[in-house]
Amino acid sequence: MKVLVINAGSSSLKYQLIDMTDESVLAKGNCERIGIGGLITHSPTGKDEIQQEMDFPTHKEAFMAVVEMLTSGAGKVIDSVSEISAVGHRVLHGSEKYKTSTLVTDQVIQDIFDFSELGPLHNPPQATAMKACQEVFGKDTPMVAVFDTSFHQTMPQKAYMFGIPYEYYEKYHIRRYGFHGTSHRYVTARYGKIKGGLEGTKIITCHLGNGSSIAAVKDGKVVDTTMGFTPLDGFIMGTRSGGIDPSVVTYLMNKEGFTPDEMSDLLNKKSGFVGLSGVSSDCRDLRHAANEGNKRAIMTLEIVVYQIKKFIGSYIAAMNGVDAIIFTGGIGENDAVFRGEVCADMEGLGLEITQELCEAASRKDCKFSTENSKIEAWVIPTNEEKMIARDTVELISR
Amino acid sequence: MKVLVINAGSSSLKYQLIDMTDESVLAKGNCERIGIGGLITHSPTGKDEIQQEMDFPTHKEAFMAVVEMLTSGAGKVIDSVSEISAVGHRVLHGSEKYKTSTLVTDQVIQDIFDFSELGPLHNPPQATAMKACQEVFGKDTPMVAVFDTSFHQTMPQKAYMFGIPYEYYEKYHIRRYGFHGTSHRYVTARYGKIKGGLEGTKIITCHLGNGSSIAAVKDGKVVDTTMGFTPLDGFIMGTRSGGIDPSVVTYLMNKEGFTPDEMSDLLNKKSGFVGLSGVSSDCRDLRHAANEGNKRAIMTLEIVVYQIKKFIGSYIAAMNGVDAIIFTGGIGENDAVFRGEVCADMEGLGLEITQELCEAASRKDCKFSTENSKIEAWVIPTNEEKMIARDTVELISR
Repeated sequence: MKVLVINAGSSSLKYQLIDMTDESVLAKGNCERIGIGGLITHSPTGKDEIQQEMDFPTHKEAFMAVVEMLTSGAGKVIDSVSEISAVGHRVLHGSEKYKTSTLVTDQVIQDIFDFSELGPLHNPPQATAMKACQEVFGKDTPMVAVFDTSFHQTMPQKAYMFGIPYEYYEKYHIRRYGFHGTSHRYVTARYGKIKGGLEGTKIITCHLGNGSSIAAVKDGKVVDTTMGFTPLDGFIMGTRSGGIDPSVVTYLMNKEGFTPDEMSDLLNKKSGFVGLSGVSSDCRDLRHAANEGNKRAIMTLEIVVYQIKKFIGSYIAAMNGVDAIIFTGGIGENDAVFRGEVCADMEGLGLEITQELCEAASRKDCKFSTENSKIEAWVIPTNEEKMIARDTVELISR
Repeated sequence: MKVLVINAGSSSLKYQLIDMTDESVLAKGNCERIGIGGLITHSPTGKDEIQQEMDFPTHKEAFMAVVEMLTSGAGKVIDSVSEISAVGHRVLHGSEKYKTSTLVTDQVIQDIFDFSELGPLHNPPQATAMKACQEVFGKDTPMVAVFDTSFHQTMPQKAYMFGIPYEYYEKYHIRRYGFHGTSHRYVTARYGKIKGGLEGTKIITCHLGNGSSIAAVKDGKVVDTTMGFTPLDGFIMGTRSGGIDPSVVTYLMNKEGFTPDEMSDLLNKKSGFVGLSGVSSDCRDLRHAANEGNKRAIMTLEIVVYQIKKFIGSYIAAMNGVDAIIFTGGIGENDAVFRGEVCADMEGLGLEITQELCEAASRKDCKFSTENSKIEAWVIPTNEEKMIARDTVELISR
């Protein structure tokens, strides 16, 4: 059974065609510059990558191009779309309604449009991509929506409520939702597989990339997470501020005459690594600059590591202990120095690693805590596309 | 030696006259409704309390009334102001300049005025009260300024920087300052006295009252604290939201058309306990309502306890362990149920209490963790006025 996984962003559409008999990737690619031009990069497994400029007025045309790439020309990997059994769509926001992945119906698409207030950059193109997919494949090809928010829907009220007047929770559904749910769920499931089950386990999953979040997961269910109403909350990221004293927001708006949208832009796009360091939003650039003695780069790395340590500590308190801390995502999987800094000086909590173990753990399922460590530290590479494909198969098989 | 302690708020002026030979309080009181009327409540120790309506156009007239109450009439405790050796003033904000308490000079008063941007409700009346005090006592009576922020000035950069563009730290001094410093310092000193020193100690001081904050204190020096640029940050309080996803601020402003000042007002005065519960900003009212089954009161108490637990965990991570957690302030000293809930289910971190020990600890210096507990839990009643008086004596004796 072949499953097409679609991940539509505001001006992009990523895809993977996965053969679920062995979960191998037949082809993957990305359509960029949707709405302002068009470029498709198509990577059929074992063949040369193809790049082509095209015209993508909307996500629909991009989707058509994906189908064409998959079924014809030098990058062809299947003879016809009829070989695709189902399509799995990543969706940013499922609000409080979608607590698990779900078969796509017209109502689901409408809901995803309706939740656009909560995910203005992602939900509309994702719903559009679903509609385009329906047109091309017909309604007989089942589609599944996999929400970034759904894995976090098990959080208790004490973790998801913000301290503002209750009426705004009722009126606008303002609460902590959490994101990267599919990634946190993937590594949680993988850990469960390694350990022979999740019952009775307490883990902290750290998805560290350009956007980053941490989740506290007890018995396989999220009890807390760092991202909040939007993916801005938590700790500093490439361009995002993470949590700050909310009075800073109103103070800066007063001082600089920013509108709410301008302020939101500043916090989401000009803050975090790039805003603090003045160097780059990329952790690798920061490390490079820090190694050359750039003080603000050094400071920025110290801040992010410190903020992550604190979230780990807070989730140990929230769960009354922890069995394992899991690192994933671009930084979490690849940056041993970063992992090492987060896990350093944590013996007081029961975590012990060595630099050698930490370095040896990159890019594979690997424990890097010492044998004596009360808390285990792991690298588990994430794979959101695989998780989406698995959910798709499971739901259409019911 | 007699020291007068002055604590000026936006429309109030609290005072205590302390005999420093035995640190006993000769009289204390409060001038209220400054600027909109005037009421003085004067409590001479061992005598009846006096209440009197007066006209207080500014803090100066209030200060004159205090002097009159202390030196004449039924509430008289001294014959003349010349018996007062020095005056200690509480000051909210000392910015990054004042890292310790300091003798008041004209420059100091000017600085306190200049920092009004950082403490708009408190710094101006506090500087005004100093000027009034100078006029009444003459410049020969020494005055000392004790800042809420100064104890926190030992925080490392990684703890005090927010993840916004660095230029706003340079331009507006936006950073974490922390407040309640005098209280955190008082209980830290008291703990040091009990233990015979602070060197090598790691403690977490929880000042829980109508306004609340927690500090991580290593070797007697603050390394982190929950309040930030303003006293809004941290966890939910009587009327304050504590930290929330900053995107909630801009989202609500867009939705409701709030100005920055209106939004700040909402977060500072209509949020927290009162906003979430709809019941009251007072923890005792919440407890009462919760006991009667009010669901939002129950939720609000669960949220504040949970948020405090998480900060405790984060500071254990920040310090790589902790020796003692200290509770102080109105709620911290008096509410055994609250303390018990914060310390419950923390064995995973090494904290064990019993309900009996916890209940027996109220309102006095008292350990309430079990003998086996790796982490100690304490109640240490705070006394900010005494701390201010001590600083005053110490500085004028140099």
